[in-house]
Amino acid sequence: MNEALSITEAAALLLGKKRILILTHERPDGDAFGSALGMKEFLHGCCGIHSEVFLPSAPAARYLELIGEYKTTLTQSELSNYDLILLLDCATRDRIACGQDIDSATLPELKCPPMLNVDHHVGNDVNARWNLVVPRAAAASQIATEIALTTQCQINARAATLWLLGIMTDTGAFRFANTLSNTLRITAELLDRGAELERVVNATYYSKPLNQQQFEVELLQKHQKLAVDNQFIYAYIPNELFTKYKFDMRDGEGVIELLREVADTKIVALFYRKGDVFKVSLRSKDSAYPVGDLARSLGGGGHDMASGITLSNMDSKEVETLLLQKVTELLHPNINED
Amino acid sequence: MNEALSITEAAALLLGKKRILILTHERPDGDAFGSALGMKEFLHGCCGIHSEVFLPSAPAARYLELIGEYKTTLTQSELSNYDLILLLDCATRDRIACGQDIDSATLPELKCPPMLNVDHHVGNDVNARWNLVVPRAAAASQIATEIALTTQCQINARAATLWLLGIMTDTGAFRFANTLSNTLRITAELLDRGAELERVVNATYYSKPLNQQQFEVELLQKHQKLAVDNQFIYAYIPNELFTKYKFDMRDGEGVIELLREVADTKIVALFYRKGDVFKVSLRSKDSAYPVGDLARSLGGGGHDMASGITLSNMDSKEVETLLLQKVTELLHPNINED
Repeated sequence: MNEALSITEAAALLLGKKRILILTHERPDGDAFGSALGMKEFLHGCCGIHSEVFLPSAPAARYLELIGEYKTTLTQSELSNYDLILLLDCATRDRIACGQDIDSATLPELKCPPMLNVDHHVGNDVNARWNLVVPRAAAASQIATEIALTTQCQINARAATLWLLGIMTDTGAFRFANTLSNTLRITAELLDRGAELERVVNATYYSKPLNQQQFEVELLQKHQKLAVDNQFIYAYIPNELFTKYKFDMRDGEGVIELLREVADTKIVALFYRKGDVFKVSLRSKDSAYPVGDLARSLGGGGHDMASGITLSNMDSKEVETLLLQKVTELLHPNINED
Repeated sequence: MNEALSITEAAALLLGKKRILILTHERPDGDAFGSALGMKEFLHGCCGIHSEVFLPSAPAARYLELIGEYKTTLTQSELSNYDLILLLDCATRDRIACGQDIDSATLPELKCPPMLNVDHHVGNDVNARWNLVVPRAAAASQIATEIALTTQCQINARAATLWLLGIMTDTGAFRFANTLSNTLRITAELLDRGAELERVVNATYYSKPLNQQQFEVELLQKHQKLAVDNQFIYAYIPNELFTKYKFDMRDGEGVIELLREVADTKIVALFYRKGDVFKVSLRSKDSAYPVGDLARSLGGGGHDMASGITLSNMDSKEVETLLLQKVTELLHPNINED
């Protein structure tokens, strides 16, 4: 009964609806809110279809002047106001950001309104009424653009700017391995429709608050470590550092990049305590050493080149030891075979 | 007698020659050696035309595994071995990198071999026998690619990788204002021909030596200053800092970006002593405040968004005072009109 759609079929489905609710994943990053808010601009502003976005938390301050309005609350009873839920950039049911009285686990199975699940994550298992999962796409915003380009509606500059933001942040300014020639061609279409590169770039790369810069400087000076023949670079961010610089990791998407920059390293990790658990971010700099399986082996998830884990019932020393062990196994798989 | 050529005419001129010498500017950056060495790969490897590149100094260490062979010496008498000089990415005669016994000022006027000047800088005044100046192009490597695409020869992966490097470094990974939709489409063509994004990106962005990272950290911690209502961010790098971290600005193309990252700033400057003079780099983050004219007013040059100056007969304090005065005039042009 559930169906996989093509891009053209997804476009036709959307254009046949009258009131669309757009959802994305928890802790929305640039591609999550960019794809969602861009789609609202497109459907509402360019196609005349009423649509609304719900975000569970505000995007980082530096993005606020780029984004339009969105709903900050969503209740179960409101769902019946819509004839479609469009879910963007969300790989699993438990990460769907919805209202507190809504069960995200059964949301994709609703008949009224039914859900269209549009995503680029390999292994997306949301399994909604309709699904468009395109792993070759660098970002959900790229798929959103491709959908829009198949229609007769003209993408306006606001939608183009938000989708550019999504593609730019998910590709690390076209530097990550997910950047394919098609990614660049789709982005070119957005620039031709008025996407404001300067504003997106200033918000994403040139709007670092001074406290964040000084937080990063101290992190690199005092907490960065190299291990496993200098191929593994990592840092544990102690809570005191967040406090000292009044810095919150909600604004810290780019911090791990600072470790990744160091020459001759292959695997990168950053971890910190959040309440009772530890959040671990992993990056690979070499496709021969993917970090997706490593993360999944510890209950996490993600791509080959970028993944994440949440660890509980451990202290920071134990997290560090576990990561060192797992990364050593990844970099030197035969070390225990003697 | 001197002629402006179209891209197609430049391609035809190149393909009609048998032995081509490729030159670029002094202190070659990624686009300079990328466009030149990529063109050698293309002409030699794809079109069967003998061609050689002369570079006055080696590219930064992190690029060495990407580049092919080049000449490290060039004498006046060797010039007669060639039937064309192709000059790439060089805006003025005095910046042409050639051998010590060659006069760069008259080189563009040679009849044998004559020169084809291919560049993207506004105001290029090399005025050679043939000139192809394309200011809309983000990089000389983009023009080189456009030339190659008009021919029947297939661009190989080595040429594509070097031109990708040139475009990537001159656009700051597609973040600078010179990134137009055509820049992305041309780059997509390079990816389709096997350009190795991962190697280019690892060399450019993820190969920072630890000593450079710690140099930068101390620069941001101790030498960064904000002025003119926090709209001007700048740093003077004292010689002791270079010595302490064994760091050379030849590898420091990206250092000014660290200042540019800070929120709400409009103009960025970095300066340091080199022998008897001061080298000043300027960046604008807002096209309403271009830094090209500012640089030219002090004998420098460059683009609206990125320029540079060499200042002599001053100490560091005087350079700082001069920059503060000039940037204040740029940001507040009417301040003295009361």
